[in-house]
Amino acid sequence: MRSFEFKPSRAFLVGLDYGGDIVSQLKDFLENNKIRCGFINGIGAIKNAEIGYYDQKSKEYIKRRFDERAEILSLTGNVSLHDGEIFPHLHVILGYNNRIYGGHLFGGEVFACEVFVIELEGNPPRREKDPQTGLNLW
Amino acid sequence: MRSFEFKPSRAFLVGLDYGGDIVSQLKDFLENNKIRCGFINGIGAIKNAEIGYYDQKSKEYIKRRFDERAEILSLTGNVSLHDGEIFPHLHVILGYNNRIYGGHLFGGEVFACEVFVIELEGNPPRREKDPQTGLNLW
Amino acid sequence: MRSFEFKPSRAFLVGLDYGGDIVSQLKDFLENNKIRCGFINGIGAIKNAEIGYYDQKSKEYIKRRFDERAEILSLTGNVSLHDGEIFPHLHVILGYNNRIYGGHLFGGEVFACEVFVIELEGNPPRREKDPQTGLNLW
Repeated sequence: MRSFEFKPSRAFLVGLDYGGDIVSQLKDFLENNKIRCGFINGIGAIKNAEIGYYDQKSKEYIKRRFDERAEILSLTGNVSLHDGEIFPHLHVILGYNNRIYGGHLFGGEVFACEVFVIELEGNPPRREKDPQTGLNLW
Repeated sequence: MRSFEFKPSRAFLVGLDYGGDIVSQLKDFLENNKIRCGFINGIGAIKNAEIGYYDQKSKEYIKRRFDERAEILSLTGNVSLHDGEIFPHLHVILGYNNRIYGGHLFGGEVFACEVFVIELEGNPPRREKDPQTGLNLW
Repeated sequence: MRSFEFKPSRAFLVGLDYGGDIVSQLKDFLENNKIRCGFINGIGAIKNAEIGYYDQKSKEYIKRRFDERAEILSLTGNVSLHDGEIFPHLHVILGYNNRIYGGHLFGGEVFACEVFVIELEGNPPRREKDPQTGLNLW
């Protein structure tokens, strides 16, 4: 088990822009504010989300794009470094009426999205390729 | 993109009362403790939840009431001001056995509910009608 | 309504070990770091999860084991004391492609799991049997 200790530092509420990509906007926000480590949680609504499922056997993400509108029921993840860059790792659960689905969030067009970010002060973990899972882990 | 910076302030664990409405109780808690800005996350169990899906085209919430018992698998949202009042914006994911669904949380009868609230110190964002989406956003 | 006030204290990012049980590892982490009260939120991937649904009428958990691999779309809960021991109460939402399900998390084999933990400084709530619901609540 690897654990990294921090002090909670700055906290933010972020309202993402209509029409822009959800992941790019979050990355821009983190970079502009130099948030290299943190916790992310949000809700909102999205269009045309691209989400992925990691095939634990083939060690590859299977990506699917959902050409539809949905509520963001849960957006959760963390911020750390990968290849020296600020990297948000995000999972999402989307739904509308009787339909609900989720996965690793690759992108999607924001309808409205309200995100809570808390910065963690300390040495940010660095992701490296883990041979056992094929994932970039700390 | 609009972002608001805060310092994490008081944190709370709240056990909601059996039988009372989930949203009213949370609002009472926030008002009694003068929490005008914050992050909310919880788990529990509920009866007769009323949840909504925002129709991004007609710009109206479609509300549905589920006359059944379910686990609260995820309750997440934020606190800000709307019309000068403390306003919690909450999405929820409910489930029982093979059934799972979620949306914007309008209400429901608490069976048991444990909620984490962290107060954000600073100027609370104020919701205003956004013409593009029809939502009250900051 | 019962509420308990705290100050946010230490924060952690934890990478759980491949192959080990998700709940045991989290409990070990909390005990080793003497975290008696806190908030937990995570994402990852799992195998053979055991989850439960609380039957609000018979007041018993119905447990189900899912012999399959899935993404951890949302892991959320809190830490408090039960019978003098550190006790994490966790709900989880799992999914893969079109399948999604969730409940009270009893266990499961970690493929990869990244967990955010924030310690809450103050008097940790103590769970006691609640006759009305049959649950151990504070």
